[in-house]
Amino acid sequence: MTDTRLIRIGIIGAGRIGKIHADNLRGVPGAVVAGVSDLFAGEELREWAALRGIGKVTKDSEELLADPDIDAVFICSSTDTHVPLIKRAAAAGKHIFCEKPVSMDLSQTEEALEAVRVAGVQLQVGFNRRFDHNFKRVREHVLAGAIGDPHVVKITSRDPSPPPEAYIKVSGGIFMDMMIHDFDMARYLSGSEVEEVYAQGGVLIDPVFAVHGDVDTAIVTLKFANGALGVIDCSRKAVYGYDQRAEVFGSGGSVAASNDYPSTAVVSNGSGVVSEKPLYFFLERYQGAYVDEAVQFVECLREGRPVPVDGGDAWQAERIALAAKLSLESGRPVKLSEIEKLKEGLGHGV
Amino acid sequence: MTDTRLIRIGIIGAGRIGKIHADNLRGVPGAVVAGVSDLFAGEELREWAALRGIGKVTKDSEELLADPDIDAVFICSSTDTHVPLIKRAAAAGKHIFCEKPVSMDLSQTEEALEAVRVAGVQLQVGFNRRFDHNFKRVREHVLAGAIGDPHVVKITSRDPSPPPEAYIKVSGGIFMDMMIHDFDMARYLSGSEVEEVYAQGGVLIDPVFAVHGDVDTAIVTLKFANGALGVIDCSRKAVYGYDQRAEVFGSGGSVAASNDYPSTAVVSNGSGVVSEKPLYFFLERYQGAYVDEAVQFVECLREGRPVPVDGGDAWQAERIALAAKLSLESGRPVKLSEIEKLKEGLGHGV
Amino acid sequence: MTDTRLIRIGIIGAGRIGKIHADNLRGVPGAVVAGVSDLFAGEELREWAALRGIGKVTKDSEELLADPDIDAVFICSSTDTHVPLIKRAAAAGKHIFCEKPVSMDLSQTEEALEAVRVAGVQLQVGFNRRFDHNFKRVREHVLAGAIGDPHVVKITSRDPSPPPEAYIKVSGGIFMDMMIHDFDMARYLSGSEVEEVYAQGGVLIDPVFAVHGDVDTAIVTLKFANGALGVIDCSRKAVYGYDQRAEVFGSGGSVAASNDYPSTAVVSNGSGVVSEKPLYFFLERYQGAYVDEAVQFVECLREGRPVPVDGGDAWQAERIALAAKLSLESGRPVKLSEIEKLKEGLGHGV
Amino acid sequence: MTDTRLIRIGIIGAGRIGKIHADNLRGVPGAVVAGVSDLFAGEELREWAALRGIGKVTKDSEELLADPDIDAVFICSSTDTHVPLIKRAAAAGKHIFCEKPVSMDLSQTEEALEAVRVAGVQLQVGFNRRFDHNFKRVREHVLAGAIGDPHVVKITSRDPSPPPEAYIKVSGGIFMDMMIHDFDMARYLSGSEVEEVYAQGGVLIDPVFAVHGDVDTAIVTLKFANGALGVIDCSRKAVYGYDQRAEVFGSGGSVAASNDYPSTAVVSNGSGVVSEKPLYFFLERYQGAYVDEAVQFVECLREGRPVPVDGGDAWQAERIALAAKLSLESGRPVKLSEIEKLKEGLGHGV
Repeated sequence: MTDTRLIRIGIIGAGRIGKIHADNLRGVPGAVVAGVSDLFAGEELREWAALRGIGKVTKDSEELLADPDIDAVFICSSTDTHVPLIKRAAAAGKHIFCEKPVSMDLSQTEEALEAVRVAGVQLQVGFNRRFDHNFKRVREHVLAGAIGDPHVVKITSRDPSPPPEAYIKVSGGIFMDMMIHDFDMARYLSGSEVEEVYAQGGVLIDPVFAVHGDVDTAIVTLKFANGALGVIDCSRKAVYGYDQRAEVFGSGGSVAASNDYPSTAVVSNGSGVVSEKPLYFFLERYQGAYVDEAVQFVECLREGRPVPVDGGDAWQAERIALAAKLSLESGRPVKLSEIEKLKEGLGHGV
Repeated sequence: MTDTRLIRIGIIGAGRIGKIHADNLRGVPGAVVAGVSDLFAGEELREWAALRGIGKVTKDSEELLADPDIDAVFICSSTDTHVPLIKRAAAAGKHIFCEKPVSMDLSQTEEALEAVRVAGVQLQVGFNRRFDHNFKRVREHVLAGAIGDPHVVKITSRDPSPPPEAYIKVSGGIFMDMMIHDFDMARYLSGSEVEEVYAQGGVLIDPVFAVHGDVDTAIVTLKFANGALGVIDCSRKAVYGYDQRAEVFGSGGSVAASNDYPSTAVVSNGSGVVSEKPLYFFLERYQGAYVDEAVQFVECLREGRPVPVDGGDAWQAERIALAAKLSLESGRPVKLSEIEKLKEGLGHGV
Repeated sequence: MTDTRLIRIGIIGAGRIGKIHADNLRGVPGAVVAGVSDLFAGEELREWAALRGIGKVTKDSEELLADPDIDAVFICSSTDTHVPLIKRAAAAGKHIFCEKPVSMDLSQTEEALEAVRVAGVQLQVGFNRRFDHNFKRVREHVLAGAIGDPHVVKITSRDPSPPPEAYIKVSGGIFMDMMIHDFDMARYLSGSEVEEVYAQGGVLIDPVFAVHGDVDTAIVTLKFANGALGVIDCSRKAVYGYDQRAEVFGSGGSVAASNDYPSTAVVSNGSGVVSEKPLYFFLERYQGAYVDEAVQFVECLREGRPVPVDGGDAWQAERIALAAKLSLESGRPVKLSEIEKLKEGLGHGV
Repeated sequence: MTDTRLIRIGIIGAGRIGKIHADNLRGVPGAVVAGVSDLFAGEELREWAALRGIGKVTKDSEELLADPDIDAVFICSSTDTHVPLIKRAAAAGKHIFCEKPVSMDLSQTEEALEAVRVAGVQLQVGFNRRFDHNFKRVREHVLAGAIGDPHVVKITSRDPSPPPEAYIKVSGGIFMDMMIHDFDMARYLSGSEVEEVYAQGGVLIDPVFAVHGDVDTAIVTLKFANGALGVIDCSRKAVYGYDQRAEVFGSGGSVAASNDYPSTAVVSNGSGVVSEKPLYFFLERYQGAYVDEAVQFVECLREGRPVPVDGGDAWQAERIALAAKLSLESGRPVKLSEIEKLKEGLGHGV
């Protein structure tokens, strides 16, 4: 007989991504969105919830955490709230889905992971790209041996347009905010840990990045434990849309994934042969991935299996981001082992 | 203020396509799946409904039609039940979504459309491909004048594998069962009515088609009222998957849509450069289209607008299918006007 | 030891295509362009020849035919001169390469073939597309069984722009002038003879075609002896360039060839993703094919093998063109066997 | 009036590439291959020449250099002979086409360039890829401003299979032998000089590279004078064929060129959608580029214009190769200015 138990979920933070997760969870068999909390909850959010049959709307996340009928929470609030919310949710015995990064400070991240471990709850981290149909298929081909031993991993990661200055200021920089996805992807696709990074960067798009000690364009090369090499090129602004591609080249061939497009329609006329721009917005590009990470989170909870991307993955990607930042600042290759030393020496990250 | 009124929907027929519609409707803001009826409703269906929070499960569609809380029904049962169900639903004042074809007999179809007209309810027909992101975009380009005046419309329509004999027997033949979608697509893409058809066909895949007076491979050429020409090639079996493409060529260029694929991953190795096969199954290929036709049905009801594909579209496509059948049987081009005459003369279709 | 004998060739007709053949032959090991004749030979042609080391330039093709040092001729003059030149060249014992069509009159074509047979020389006909890298590869896949038994052959054939009226007047019509290539391609790709054709056509581009009893847009469907079906769509004007594609679909899959492009460069910017238009001109698109048909002609002569496309192929394609014309005129499918009867009855074609 | 003067050319070194150049030059209007020299000239070479109407075949390049009828030479012999041959040809007043690299020693290269300058002859260097239809088109788009200011230049350069050990031993290493083409391409596409390089490398394909102090896989990142960043990934073995791609990304978009293929034929069957592997061999991939560089060399000489790729380009690419080698050996980024210092200090390269 099928298990008809439902997983009841609370959404913490009803901004853009919180609403996306809520809508996706509504379509997941076995899941119920039981409530939503947001500091600015008002009429608009209540109407939004009514149209979706979501009963509880509150300004106070504590209401969700205290609700014994709620099994799990999605933490979709700002990055600085992640660690305290993880600790409280873990203490309340709720399973946790948390957006990336867990924090910008390795020590803080480690505290959150420890709280989760002690509480015995599950923590899934929002590295949604691992659930993307394209990248997942690349990984499957690598695992199946279709390309032999990986020699080179190449990732292209370009946003359609830079965030506003208010965001840049608190973003943690291009490595922690944007490329952290790519660092996770590099680990995922290569199946190996990164041992050394070298980062080049420049302010080529907007001087505002320089004002905040950041760059807007970067190329990071990687050395993996298995001997493979890697390179990620990253830009804050691709005028044609969201550009997210990857290739793994190896002894037996290569496998490459390109972008997704709104349609396959191609117009041929006097001006040329014109196909569509890549899906412009990350929520469109990764719509299927967001659904799939929610499906898997719910399925793992229902079946008592470990979730597919956990706190350890968050920790590894954060380390690589810190090493890339140090490389850019120092103008030299940086070994990941240096980051550990730094943390021990300095207490709070770089 | 947003309208928070919900449209409550009953699903009649909980086979594969009925369940798909139910799942899609669950994700549509403003819609509630209030009940489901199926002649063979049992434990399995009740569990399925429980996991989705669908309260009412019954063997008797009358229960849904009699429920004053239900605003609309999706008719997803077998083709022979469409006309009687449309009549009963119309009489009960329910709006109707009905799978294609309405019937295989023009007179019957006309009776159903009349019942809908008299009752003043809305009827949307399941020509889902009009909602496909690719074909919709082709249509938009044609409408926007990107290719000038249409000269040639080309459609390729191939199923991954033939249906079982039991289905072939009652299918109504390749023109009514399968190419009816393509006939609708030809009207949609050209923006013009079909005036004449010539059909070639053969039994190249399986002799079972000949046993039932059917063909498994066909090429139908079309003449449109606006002077454009058209051609549809159709096969019951493409071993590589569901092959659904269209091209409109005109005085100012061409626009073409190809298939969708599970991913963009491409493997290059000693054997060649290998990309994925097209999505194999129509439910995968048109997943987005099924969602979108449900969304539009609900939105039109909520906003009191006419639904986008109605009974008249069903009637036109059925006429073309009958003309194609007559052309194949007679070995000559057939004008659509002949079908009207036939109907008048014979009473019940061809 | 390698055979160092050279094949000495005379070019009859130094228009565009004659010069192309001359330049291609210059690069063929074992071939020497020994002379060129043209009714309008003058200073310009002598300079052209001097830069290429071609010694003999004359107004009189007889000079080439009478030259005992010349082994073969390329007949590149206007269609109405083909038959008399073939007869004279055959009588002079020269091997012959002749552009298509041999003539527009089956009886004339048959006389030319008979002259060739009697003289024991070789005749290759300029169905250059058989040597195209794309179509050749399609044929190879079909022969290798990669797609199983052919079920459907589809050919798209569009010129970038219509010829001038002076040419339209004497062209022989769209079927004999333009689609004759496609009829040959249909035979080549299917590996089967055409038994019946049905032609639809329209004047959608320029009324001048109607003035001369011609159409500018056509769709021709075919039935092959092996049971397969075929369809060719043809237009005199594709604003985006020369559009030449083919697909063979069968029991085991499909093989399709698309166009060639000036480069693989793709620009992605705010307007879209733009790749190049297909090669615009048939001399660019089939440059490699023109070289290859010249190489094979020379090799076959040097090695005493039969040439790859002969008079019989010309005759078959001309028959199909005549049948298509009759179908368009009569508005009904036409069997190829009717053409034979017509010829017997009428003496000189349709 | 057209200039009918012919450029008479001698080929020095009749190995694979020398024969290719000879065959290409035979088709160039205005050029005559007047002679060929090779240390191992014998019966086979004489037959080869006879079939092509090349009169002079000799073992001694001096015969060609002393021939007053010869205007220019193609130096296609081994790298170690380039500098002495350039000096002798320049002294003999012949224009020179020389394969890359001029030498592996900057001082030697500079001596050759000086000899050319003093003699007032022209020297074109065989960076054939600049004439490739794909890369040329990328460059044209960059120059035309289609992508705005270049931010990132990406080049992928993979050979189908490693050379034999005998070649590896004397090749000068992956940077000088193979990536020198890519370094030139980086300059060409960015329109800017390289200021700094960082090279990562590994022996992932065959330990024989390590034996000779070489690597078989490398990623080199670049900083350009105009602020742009660059990255080249290189491998000695791509099992699927010759993989040569480039992309320039900028403020206004991107332009990318992919590989060329033997045909556009695509087979779809039960195994997948299979297109052809890239052209396997560099002589196929760059066939058009080899022709075009010969055409341009001849045209420039006939018209008295400077040739398109000269000794200065050779010198710049050799400097980058030396810097990349130093970076790999030292494990740190290297500025190009260091190479100048090294040369001054050490006399003979790195």
